[in-house]
Amino acid sequence: MSQTFQGVIPPVVTPLTESGDFDIASFERSLNHMIDAGVHALFILGSSGEVVFSTDERRREIIEATMSIVAGRVPVLVGCIDTQTNRVIEHARVAAELGADAIVATAPFYALGGMAEIEQHFRLIRAAVDLPLFAYDIPVCVHVKLPVDMLIRLGRDGVIDGVKDSSGDDVSFRFLVQDNEAAGRPLTLLTGHEVVVDGAYMSGADGCVPGLGNIDPAAYVRQWNAYQAGDWETVRTEQDRLAKLMRIATVTSGVTGYGAGVGSFKTALALMGIFTSNRMPEPVVALSGDNVTAIEKILRENDIL
Amino acid sequence: MSQTFQGVIPPVVTPLTESGDFDIASFERSLNHMIDAGVHALFILGSSGEVVFSTDERRREIIEATMSIVAGRVPVLVGCIDTQTNRVIEHARVAAELGADAIVATAPFYALGGMAEIEQHFRLIRAAVDLPLFAYDIPVCVHVKLPVDMLIRLGRDGVIDGVKDSSGDDVSFRFLVQDNEAAGRPLTLLTGHEVVVDGAYMSGADGCVPGLGNIDPAAYVRQWNAYQAGDWETVRTEQDRLAKLMRIATVTSGVTGYGAGVGSFKTALALMGIFTSNRMPEPVVALSGDNVTAIEKILRENDIL
Amino acid sequence: MSQTFQGVIPPVVTPLTESGDFDIASFERSLNHMIDAGVHALFILGSSGEVVFSTDERRREIIEATMSIVAGRVPVLVGCIDTQTNRVIEHARVAAELGADAIVATAPFYALGGMAEIEQHFRLIRAAVDLPLFAYDIPVCVHVKLPVDMLIRLGRDGVIDGVKDSSGDDVSFRFLVQDNEAAGRPLTLLTGHEVVVDGAYMSGADGCVPGLGNIDPAAYVRQWNAYQAGDWETVRTEQDRLAKLMRIATVTSGVTGYGAGVGSFKTALALMGIFTSNRMPEPVVALSGDNVTAIEKILRENDIL
Amino acid sequence: MSQTFQGVIPPVVTPLTESGDFDIASFERSLNHMIDAGVHALFILGSSGEVVFSTDERRREIIEATMSIVAGRVPVLVGCIDTQTNRVIEHARVAAELGADAIVATAPFYALGGMAEIEQHFRLIRAAVDLPLFAYDIPVCVHVKLPVDMLIRLGRDGVIDGVKDSSGDDVSFRFLVQDNEAAGRPLTLLTGHEVVVDGAYMSGADGCVPGLGNIDPAAYVRQWNAYQAGDWETVRTEQDRLAKLMRIATVTSGVTGYGAGVGSFKTALALMGIFTSNRMPEPVVALSGDNVTAIEKILRENDIL
Repeated sequence: MSQTFQGVIPPVVTPLTESGDFDIASFERSLNHMIDAGVHALFILGSSGEVVFSTDERRREIIEATMSIVAGRVPVLVGCIDTQTNRVIEHARVAAELGADAIVATAPFYALGGMAEIEQHFRLIRAAVDLPLFAYDIPVCVHVKLPVDMLIRLGRDGVIDGVKDSSGDDVSFRFLVQDNEAAGRPLTLLTGHEVVVDGAYMSGADGCVPGLGNIDPAAYVRQWNAYQAGDWETVRTEQDRLAKLMRIATVTSGVTGYGAGVGSFKTALALMGIFTSNRMPEPVVALSGDNVTAIEKILRENDIL
Repeated sequence: MSQTFQGVIPPVVTPLTESGDFDIASFERSLNHMIDAGVHALFILGSSGEVVFSTDERRREIIEATMSIVAGRVPVLVGCIDTQTNRVIEHARVAAELGADAIVATAPFYALGGMAEIEQHFRLIRAAVDLPLFAYDIPVCVHVKLPVDMLIRLGRDGVIDGVKDSSGDDVSFRFLVQDNEAAGRPLTLLTGHEVVVDGAYMSGADGCVPGLGNIDPAAYVRQWNAYQAGDWETVRTEQDRLAKLMRIATVTSGVTGYGAGVGSFKTALALMGIFTSNRMPEPVVALSGDNVTAIEKILRENDIL
Repeated sequence: MSQTFQGVIPPVVTPLTESGDFDIASFERSLNHMIDAGVHALFILGSSGEVVFSTDERRREIIEATMSIVAGRVPVLVGCIDTQTNRVIEHARVAAELGADAIVATAPFYALGGMAEIEQHFRLIRAAVDLPLFAYDIPVCVHVKLPVDMLIRLGRDGVIDGVKDSSGDDVSFRFLVQDNEAAGRPLTLLTGHEVVVDGAYMSGADGCVPGLGNIDPAAYVRQWNAYQAGDWETVRTEQDRLAKLMRIATVTSGVTGYGAGVGSFKTALALMGIFTSNRMPEPVVALSGDNVTAIEKILRENDIL
Repeated sequence: MSQTFQGVIPPVVTPLTESGDFDIASFERSLNHMIDAGVHALFILGSSGEVVFSTDERRREIIEATMSIVAGRVPVLVGCIDTQTNRVIEHARVAAELGADAIVATAPFYALGGMAEIEQHFRLIRAAVDLPLFAYDIPVCVHVKLPVDMLIRLGRDGVIDGVKDSSGDDVSFRFLVQDNEAAGRPLTLLTGHEVVVDGAYMSGADGCVPGLGNIDPAAYVRQWNAYQAGDWETVRTEQDRLAKLMRIATVTSGVTGYGAGVGSFKTALALMGIFTSNRMPEPVVALSGDNVTAIEKILRENDIL
């Protein structure tokens, strides 16, 4: 496996203007903020990148802006998230056409199926589009966990090139790392859990996809470098600080799920002057009032402001 | 409430050719089979109509064919099923443009949210498209149940005109009927559970949306007429026979979910000569071998063949 | 199958004194209230009978009081609800020793298992205790649904004599009734959903186990008699009124689950003068204030007070 | 917080004879195997200790044997697992009477409740029994997650002394550790996930409760000592080997849940000559044939045999 997709790969949050348009100026500031901090790649149109809120036109707009702004400085992974195979393939073809370096797809969702359909789904995407393919394991959204043995088989068969693990199942993740090792490392294995990246590194992860990396990319890069150097104490210390910073996502009240999580990231980025607005996609309402104050306090306590 | 959307409204199964194209000739036979049997409306692009498997182009193709074939004989409801608000509104606008009589939308899915977002979702769809709007309550697919009090509030406020209840929660459905009655009947209430329509009629349902109505629409029409006439013994007797016929969806082995459910409907329609193929959308595999034989046997036992 | 366990069989709510002791005087009033109304049997130590809150000593106390008060007027079913087989068998032996007419057991819970363990569980109970055995299907509490084919097999093999269905899955219930019919009716099939008993009767249920039958047993008896006479309009009318009365369990605020459900039954029984207190078992708090007022209002509207 | 309950605290597996009796000779070998390896305490009657399969008499038998065999060499925590408060308190009183050093209780289960009932449950246990109390967070069994803020509040109020975290939610665990630190460390925090103890140590855990510690207690002790010394490379290396050894619990086929997990532990202990039988409690069947062979192979590969 090449090292192209190893290291710190933030799932890029998408800025909107107050009127709900895509805010390309804020987007450029944000991408540069991350690239300048040394992140190793960028993952756009992930769950945090409001992919499922975005129309096809909006998705295209975001990919085009990214390719133009990044201009080859780092690889770009593009989320092709949709309900079932043929819709995902359409997104994947657009991503390929626009220059994506890799695509990311979840298990199919909404319609009920079994493991045979999930495996066939990835095989069909692979057959349709000639780009590195990451399986995105996110049971909280698609309501099924990708089994370790299927992932390894898909890796051995050259169907998928890696896994973005947002399963929250660290036991399964460790078994995945070990089985991947035993299989000759066909897969690049990334953790999506920004609060416990140190644990994933202990398990042997190849990198992380931290939403919080939009806010403090430099800390995740320092942590990665410490990991590469075997400096576990720094890995842990950086993580502890980042876990404190992550409280921006749990300090809000009266809001749940996406509105609290990505809502807090957008609010932080607005407070930092990177975004011009913390506007959320319909039907989600932006954080306001005491929730903004509480987030600001945490940013100050952790030297972000 | 007008009676436009009352009675038997089958969710139309979408025929494919062996090569996976939309099979318009089979589709015409199928729609005529149902209209000739006396169904009161048709619901296309529902869960059984493989909406989430269909690209935007395929969805448009199905709507256009439907409007052309139906030609005003019965009203047409169009499922506008997608992950979040703006994507749903795009589909709704296409449906309106192509002449739909009503649209049907679920709660948003994939991204996590709360009840406030769901309510706002329906209000935004209402504001964007001027067509009767049905809320589609299908927790098995979207992983949230629409609460009775929200539905009644949306009805009172003129946001939604009805509910297609596929929740499987018959206790909640009875409370919904009673609260709708107390609110002056702003909502038309349809059950999606073809095996227990009699129970829903006991609760006071305004109609049914039976997938099995693709196979035997006449029986559901006879049951509806008996319901209107207060002939409960016939309501029950028809239901018992239909429940036996529904075993086509449970008799299969080695297949789960959509492949077994809609797969059995397609197989039955092929055996009946209405469809030319029981081909399923990617990544689902069509039923074959013993599963087909088992379905054929049930069709014979229930005088469909 | 004998008709011993057919008809209206309320799951008996257990009265406590203000200090938390078993209130035998209230219990006697309550049992007589139901027997005088014509119920066909009584089910003690069910979920509503606070079986899992009760120590072994308390369970024994309740069984003894029941057998003494009932004195053979109606059959008594005793819930033997506990985590795993050997604990259930202990309860079943006590029930047999004290004169129970039948025992009721759920699938094992807490430890994770598969269908093989559940089936073996019922077979071991059957082998240990020589009393009619009902399988209690209550996935909301034990987190697994008993499959229809397993229940029919256990019925054919003489392991279980009936099913108390609190699954909320009316589709499965209808299939169960049909398969039981095809198997020669080894099972007596009772529904536990007091709000939709009419639907279960349409499906062919042999009786009901309505918690609300503690409050208005006479209405369920009238409904049963109408069912036996084929008077479906009365079956439905009685059900509609009972559904309105059941709002005592949904009208409360700030309370969920058992505290709202059984809490409202106890509060109603206290308001009716049958119970002396609406005290709940630890750690559940009794309803008070506005919640009591709201329940009283519903009781008055439905002529219970 | 004293350090009494820090370090490696295996949840003790309970040996049975072929006829299903408690096998005290095997139990003695097993306890000594762990104590001799340097474990810091023992946790009996946990989920792995078949507490919910055990009658009250069997539970008493196990506690008595433990206190007699251990004879003060290490502290003993006793699981008091039952459905609701009063039943748990009965078990806790027995544990106190027989000399337990601490008790362990889960949230109440089976009956549905809310957070208020759970908090009250722990407060009532605390009031009834004067022993250190651990909250056992095990949503896979009780179907609710104990929230971090409730745990901290119960710690500050002197209600609970620690948490055994088997939630599998490592994000929540890190937040718990941080909040506990901020609150002055009222709680001792133990992880129950034997495959990722290294991640929990990175988060600052006070110890672990590894089922696999029945098989290889010495490795967990070496890992703990490395953790105390800041030797993270050893922490990780030991963990990787233990994760390989843990494959005994995933290598089986045709068995799920408890039968595979604890079943593999019992089988390993029998192969090691510590247990005389791998007999499981009713209704679970012991592993046999190829499953035993597969476990033996893993034990050999990891130098246990």
